[in-house]
Amino acid sequence: MKPDKYVHGYSDKEASRLNNQADTLEDIIHCDSIFPNGSLVLEAGCGVGAQTKIITAKNPHSGFISIDISEDSIREAKEMQKQAGLTNVEFKQADIFHLPFEDETFDGVILCFVLEHLHDPIEALHSVKRVLKKGGVLMAIEGDHGSTFFYPESEDACAAINCQIQLQKQAGGNANIGRTLYPLFNATGLKEISVTPRMVYVDSSKPQLVEGFIKNTFTAMIEGVGKMSVERGLVDDQTFDKGIKDLYRTAASDGVFCYTFLKVMGIK
Amino acid sequence: MKPDKYVHGYSDKEASRLNNQADTLEDIIHCDSIFPNGSLVLEAGCGVGAQTKIITAKNPHSGFISIDISEDSIREAKEMQKQAGLTNVEFKQADIFHLPFEDETFDGVILCFVLEHLHDPIEALHSVKRVLKKGGVLMAIEGDHGSTFFYPESEDACAAINCQIQLQKQAGGNANIGRTLYPLFNATGLKEISVTPRMVYVDSSKPQLVEGFIKNTFTAMIEGVGKMSVERGLVDDQTFDKGIKDLYRTAASDGVFCYTFLKVMGIK
Repeated sequence: MKPDKYVHGYSDKEASRLNNQADTLEDIIHCDSIFPNGSLVLEAGCGVGAQTKIITAKNPHSGFISIDISEDSIREAKEMQKQAGLTNVEFKQADIFHLPFEDETFDGVILCFVLEHLHDPIEALHSVKRVLKKGGVLMAIEGDHGSTFFYPESEDACAAINCQIQLQKQAGGNANIGRTLYPLFNATGLKEISVTPRMVYVDSSKPQLVEGFIKNTFTAMIEGVGKMSVERGLVDDQTFDKGIKDLYRTAASDGVFCYTFLKVMGIK
Repeated sequence: MKPDKYVHGYSDKEASRLNNQADTLEDIIHCDSIFPNGSLVLEAGCGVGAQTKIITAKNPHSGFISIDISEDSIREAKEMQKQAGLTNVEFKQADIFHLPFEDETFDGVILCFVLEHLHDPIEALHSVKRVLKKGGVLMAIEGDHGSTFFYPESEDACAAINCQIQLQKQAGGNANIGRTLYPLFNATGLKEISVTPRMVYVDSSKPQLVEGFIKNTFTAMIEGVGKMSVERGLVDDQTFDKGIKDLYRTAASDGVFCYTFLKVMGIK
């Protein structure tokens, strides 16, 4: 991801939010992020290593090279690696569009929440496909903000979510990219493409997801773009504030919140 | 459902659409529509028996009483029963709000695509709860039109879908009822409530769902409310026609379509 354009920013709070997201959604997203023992896997766009921690633990007999374009993120990821004692990953600063690896170096490639930020996701897919061995698997997991629905319904909450979608578009990304994974993989010439939706359904019988997903992941993320959205004239601040209040309202005992991640696998 | 208000109408084409819907989505919706052997089960709002055919086949050692308020639908359901040779169900005209059964008659109750059409779903749930034995299970499955998202995106398609949502609201129903199943069951005093989303994800690797769901179920349903929507001033006919065209466009080789049904189970 481009550091100067990354819409969520690089603050400590953001790093904490990303970690929170991974911890809460681990089972839904990564239950099948499994590579054959002995694989060498590229994780492109690892950020601060929030997903890396999960994926490397799930694949203790494989080795990972996890790259990100941001020097700061890689520094933080290395700090996390030291503290968590991860031994099967090497973090490295690199650009997904200009990978410093030979053709057909990796047995597998995984991209988590990366394509949504890129101006040309197909070019990025071609780039990682180049370094993937023939027969190797390419996995990607992305969200889709347009998949969000909740109870009680609220037009203001939809307007607030739409700010995030517009900002990401202005930064050259696509917050609704989840639904496009099948055509993107198809356009890259991958084979045996399989997409599976991973809906996070939350009601008050799931207090961990009420806290961990509705409040601390999704609404916190939308709340974080309020200032910029108002400055850019995408929304007035009363509407935005009401929208955030209504999103928190879905965390009440009679509230419901649904969001869909999509995971795709394809073979080179 | 109230015959005079039932927004999808009662035509032959509609009956065929409902059958098509059930045949295509059987696994997604009814994989766990299972009652203990020897149960007596009430299916309330059976319509023409499209779901009945599936549920009774899945529970060959239980008996069903399937009711609907529409005499015409019950007549058609009985015709279907004769042709399909169903032996473990009795079809009967009755009103879900005034059930002609003693308290605690049934071991289980199932409602499929019924609550969405009712002006007071909680009253209906209280009514079926009355005839359910203590400890018996109440299941309901509903769609949620607001859960729809697709690629390529299209504002006109969203406008067309919104017509259906508005018409159903005008008729006293709620096309976005899926997301409210947890609070509805909670408000009815049911216990051990569990809601699971059943997303229908369709891309061109699933030709059966492209035909059976995108085209013949969902888009056909929306297409069916075009005339009434234009007459009532909900949309102009150019926008509606473009919206339908865009919905069919999602059935192309690079298209994607997602819709979520929600299933709830609760214990009396």
